[in-house]
Amino acid sequence: MLYHIPTAQDIATAHERIKDYIHRTPVLTNTFINKQVGADLYFKCENFQKVGAFKARGGMNTVLSLSNDELRKGVATHSSGNHAQAIALAAKLAGAQAFIVMPSSAPRIKKAAVKDYGAEVIECEPTLIARETTLQNVVAETGATFIHPYNDYRVIAGQATAAKELIEDVDDKLDAIVTPVGGGGLLSGPALSTYYFSNGTKVFAGEPEGADDAYKSFNKGELIPQVSPKSVADGLLTSLGEKPFQIIMQYVTDILLVNEIEIINAMRMVWERMKIIIEPSCAVPLAAVLRNNEQFKNQRIGIILTGGNVDLGKLPFE
Amino acid sequence: MLYHIPTAQDIATAHERIKDYIHRTPVLTNTFINKQVGADLYFKCENFQKVGAFKARGGMNTVLSLSNDELRKGVATHSSGNHAQAIALAAKLAGAQAFIVMPSSAPRIKKAAVKDYGAEVIECEPTLIARETTLQNVVAETGATFIHPYNDYRVIAGQATAAKELIEDVDDKLDAIVTPVGGGGLLSGPALSTYYFSNGTKVFAGEPEGADDAYKSFNKGELIPQVSPKSVADGLLTSLGEKPFQIIMQYVTDILLVNEIEIINAMRMVWERMKIIIEPSCAVPLAAVLRNNEQFKNQRIGIILTGGNVDLGKLPFE
Repeated sequence: MLYHIPTAQDIATAHERIKDYIHRTPVLTNTFINKQVGADLYFKCENFQKVGAFKARGGMNTVLSLSNDELRKGVATHSSGNHAQAIALAAKLAGAQAFIVMPSSAPRIKKAAVKDYGAEVIECEPTLIARETTLQNVVAETGATFIHPYNDYRVIAGQATAAKELIEDVDDKLDAIVTPVGGGGLLSGPALSTYYFSNGTKVFAGEPEGADDAYKSFNKGELIPQVSPKSVADGLLTSLGEKPFQIIMQYVTDILLVNEIEIINAMRMVWERMKIIIEPSCAVPLAAVLRNNEQFKNQRIGIILTGGNVDLGKLPFE
Repeated sequence: MLYHIPTAQDIATAHERIKDYIHRTPVLTNTFINKQVGADLYFKCENFQKVGAFKARGGMNTVLSLSNDELRKGVATHSSGNHAQAIALAAKLAGAQAFIVMPSSAPRIKKAAVKDYGAEVIECEPTLIARETTLQNVVAETGATFIHPYNDYRVIAGQATAAKELIEDVDDKLDAIVTPVGGGGLLSGPALSTYYFSNGTKVFAGEPEGADDAYKSFNKGELIPQVSPKSVADGLLTSLGEKPFQIIMQYVTDILLVNEIEIINAMRMVWERMKIIIEPSCAVPLAAVLRNNEQFKNQRIGIILTGGNVDLGKLPFE
């Protein structure tokens, strides 16, 4: 277990630990989008990551840092999304059993993907209480280690490696790094990496107006849980975690809100111009940079594209 | 003008001529798709090419090989698709005026893209006769050089460079290269490159059952024009050109038909698994390899992904 905010050494160790099991994803640029913003954007493409999202990093770092005793009893989590697949894959590589609690309403294809990695899927009613109760029962019965999707310093250290690679792979220093914020794992980890490995680079997050708990919490200085979130950016509906919040208060410059139309327009711009598939959640940082382009004029900006898992039958384009 | 089938030297010269003006697109692989086929696939990503398609190569090579006298009078073509943008971009880079005849029914966004490159768009009725008549008038008035989208050895030499790069960028020799076939530019050019630069590698094409003129022509040994083609692969509806046909008869091993469902399934597989955007036409070679996977078992296969220009509001997924 990691009981403190990850140090530079913790992040370097995490990177060393996982680097043979993840992709070092490419950093792409696009002339058209640069012109639209009036700045130089560097897109770190975690949509090309294993399981299609950055979550592979945090999941892998956590599972691979467990003891043999812990691994023998397996790992557990509840998730209907990318974290489920990340833990299932990491467990498979570590030779451990994964128990994944998924709501019965989760898409069949997502359950199948988790099972394909050899994980055991335990279905529950689609409520947060049912998920947590079912998970507690699984942990009580099996002794498996619960891995939280973002409120865990090992997970945060894993997500931090995405920004570490981005910083290493861009020639000159970045003026800013922008991520989306949901639970806060991908904001807090990269904020730490930026502080340690690219001193002077500012860190921003984009957040949907319809799921603005991080914005409110950041500005009030205390954690305000999300109530009835609503956004096409379905990866960002969760409430900010305590551990990420503590890091965000210290290392993040600002959280920028965007509306639904701005998210869909930014997503469309990436699809049409870069010819790559990103989730709506991924488009939030670009939407934030486009909306605040005066602030970012002529700067060098790193943007972490978090994942590419979309339902092609339900796209937000007209 | 190039009056003979391009030689190895012609293709090398074309590559030298255009290489500073095009992207050397990446070659990607995907574990999941390899497992589905039971072979090792190497995808040459021309969807990331300038103007979003391989057409940039042929257009660029042709325009850049014109004399100063010719350039002064400009270049002309008729196209509603990728060739229009390719010629417009090439002309801009060469400092020449482009005259692009486009059907009035062409999407506004495509006309805008061509105009953005500084080309003059001349609209006509959406019939082949109107396109050809309008083009003849434009050429008669301006003295501009007409650049055919595929029935031109300079264009073919340009398209050949896509396969030349693929062959150079894959470590070991490929057993086969598979392209789609419409007018034949991207099949004949790569067939020549393969013959010259990767002796022993076979060349195949995939073609939609609903636009099977190349299949029929190839098997009968004479050019049979396409009548009332119908396919989601809208880049492959044109009739095979005479010059490409002559090369295809000599250097291509086989043309493999696929149906509409196979095309959409292959397209979906690339979008979902590789997280990249390809046109339906692009999915035809993969569909052909999946349909004939026994034939390709355990082989090393290069596939040219031709372009990524799709209308996101009209996708074939359910």
